[in-house]
Amino acid sequence: MKNTVYCATSLDGFIATKDHGVEFLESAGPAAEGEDYGWADFFGPIDALIMGRNTWDVFLGFNMWPYEDKKIIVLTNRDIPIPEDYRDKVSVASGTPADVMEHAHSLGYKNLYIDGGKVVQDFLRAGLVDDIYLTIIPVLIGEGIPLFGPLEGDIKLKTVKATSFENGIVQLHYKPIKE
Amino acid sequence: MKNTVYCATSLDGFIATKDHGVEFLESAGPAAEGEDYGWADFFGPIDALIMGRNTWDVFLGFNMWPYEDKKIIVLTNRDIPIPEDYRDKVSVASGTPADVMEHAHSLGYKNLYIDGGKVVQDFLRAGLVDDIYLTIIPVLIGEGIPLFGPLEGDIKLKTVKATSFENGIVQLHYKPIKE
Repeated sequence: MKNTVYCATSLDGFIATKDHGVEFLESAGPAAEGEDYGWADFFGPIDALIMGRNTWDVFLGFNMWPYEDKKIIVLTNRDIPIPEDYRDKVSVASGTPADVMEHAHSLGYKNLYIDGGKVVQDFLRAGLVDDIYLTIIPVLIGEGIPLFGPLEGDIKLKTVKATSFENGIVQLHYKPIKE
Repeated sequence: MKNTVYCATSLDGFIATKDHGVEFLESAGPAAEGEDYGWADFFGPIDALIMGRNTWDVFLGFNMWPYEDKKIIVLTNRDIPIPEDYRDKVSVASGTPADVMEHAHSLGYKNLYIDGGKVVQDFLRAGLVDDIYLTIIPVLIGEGIPLFGPLEGDIKLKTVKATSFENGIVQLHYKPIKE
């Protein structure tokens, strides 16, 4: 059982512009053939994605299911429309990150992908992130939606690995140290 | 002639806490014997440091000269007190980053260390940074003084190298691409 963050940011730490644009992701050169930045290894064992209402809305706009056989838990206090095709895949939860994790485990979802800025921040603050994979795009965008946010205290990290790729992307793998 | 940024930040991109604390720099384990994170290679060819008034004030508080034979240019619009011992080493400049660079070159200072958050941001915005060495300390501090700031447009970067060290520190070397 573990909770993983896997996220691309600009070098100045943003996951998107303020209006949710992610054009900056194209700033790196093309990936080498077959290079997926560890995505398949990371995503394979994932049972469910935990995402906020905003991320869910963005996803719905795609009008397709990009998550293979993965389940999704949307964090929201309100009823949200779930298209009929997705009802066996999507559930809704609210409460603290610990509540959400309990809900996920009760459904048999053990390996969770913690997705979206606010959700990541809430899980980090709650000490419920086991692994962080940061894919750093070689660009500064100046302002936007930050991946990280305010904390009650410092969170020390264990550095597992730093990898740089031909096209300028750098991937950092950290584990928050639980004290 | 080149302008270099060499700076340590937390993983969330801060160079200090809001009250200028840098205790987080101690979050990594001790450096391996003789490991200086490329400091000597970087600092050796530097002729002068460009720093803001705040950084200068912090430096004065040290009551010692940690910069060997390097010169300092303090960016300020006011007269500042310069201790007598330092008068051959310190000069004052104001104006745009281009003005400051011209002032430095007129004094024969070719390789410049761009130091301090605001100065780094101003030189980046002016397209006058050639190399960025980021030493990433494995810790999240939540808030503080960011290294990077607002830009008029994206700045793409060429990734030169990513290096990770035994104690968890990661160093990234980028070159802003001048378009």
